[in-house]
Amino acid sequence: MNSQTADKRGLLVVLTGPSGVGKNSIIEALRADDPSLFHSVSMTTRDPRKGETDGVSYHFASKERFQALVDAGEILEFDMYCGAYYGTPKAPITEKTEHGTDVLLDLTVKGALEIKKNDPGAVLIFVAAPSEKALRDRLLARGTESPERIEQRLNTARDELNQIQYFDYLVVNNNVEEARADIQAIIRAEKRRITRLFVDGSEPDSV
Amino acid sequence: MNSQTADKRGLLVVLTGPSGVGKNSIIEALRADDPSLFHSVSMTTRDPRKGETDGVSYHFASKERFQALVDAGEILEFDMYCGAYYGTPKAPITEKTEHGTDVLLDLTVKGALEIKKNDPGAVLIFVAAPSEKALRDRLLARGTESPERIEQRLNTARDELNQIQYFDYLVVNNNVEEARADIQAIIRAEKRRITRLFVDGSEPDSV
Repeated sequence: MNSQTADKRGLLVVLTGPSGVGKNSIIEALRADDPSLFHSVSMTTRDPRKGETDGVSYHFASKERFQALVDAGEILEFDMYCGAYYGTPKAPITEKTEHGTDVLLDLTVKGALEIKKNDPGAVLIFVAAPSEKALRDRLLARGTESPERIEQRLNTARDELNQIQYFDYLVVNNNVEEARADIQAIIRAEKRRITRLFVDGSEPDSV
Repeated sequence: MNSQTADKRGLLVVLTGPSGVGKNSIIEALRADDPSLFHSVSMTTRDPRKGETDGVSYHFASKERFQALVDAGEILEFDMYCGAYYGTPKAPITEKTEHGTDVLLDLTVKGALEIKKNDPGAVLIFVAAPSEKALRDRLLARGTESPERIEQRLNTARDELNQIQYFDYLVVNNNVEEARADIQAIIRAEKRRITRLFVDGSEPDSV
């Protein structure tokens, strides 16, 4: 056995961070650089925002359909956030990781921790804004939500930050290219981690 | 406090691997790319090999001088390997890391584990050859040692590989540029690790 063949499963990489922090731009930059990277699109019961496309931004679903998938065990994790369900369809992810493809997930804190509980090999990355002011400015500039909703999102962001110790990495999104390079480095490094390469207790034979 | 300022200490990065695996070439490639990276030169009591320069390959010292430095607490770790002492002078390393400079160490397995015991934040990277045959070929090509010494080194390499589970990362040196990029990714990723950023229990304030 060559030590490089010990774990050929794809990596499950979870990005979590407040609304408006720029996760979508970072994911686009990562996929532009490596189109083989699979971005698992979440399912949500909230209404589409202006410019959002079904199957790209989210899979939009009714509460009834979402519940039926949960009952069938087809949702890996789900969460209620600002009054809507968000969930991760299971089948496309296991299919990709089993064939060695790395999968990117964009989840809430609760969803990220649920994934980690079921798969300790998942890599949790918290994406933070440089400051609360920067985040408020971005949410205001987006112009899609009321001031009250923005304050609600900032409160949620502050709560979520208290759980950062359960994550593996913090990436501060000062600019999207640096954040992309940070995450690429994290993925590359994680593939060289001893605990990941010899998870099954196998012995390396290269010297 | 900005979450990026939580830990500005330089990283202590330990490279370990069998003689002939190419650690020197990797270190040269890393320092060519980032000359600020400090390579801590070990001290040894063994005789210089052809082409080795004092203060570059090693600080060469007599056993008496080495022992005096150990007694003075000026050697961070030391080890006996193939009949000679190898040790790490302390002062230049702490001076560099305290000023935010990353430090590369090239150590034996025992030395690496000693460093980790005293500084759990040290990053231990095991550099392996693609195969035992590749390693033997490299040692033979170097032409500086007897066949018996080469077999002795290969035996040591096999013993050391049994302790790989105490290391953080495995880098297989298929080619020096890929190995360099792996280690650069590891250094970049480690600087984003949550456990490293908030070691002092401080709270992040960016969202």
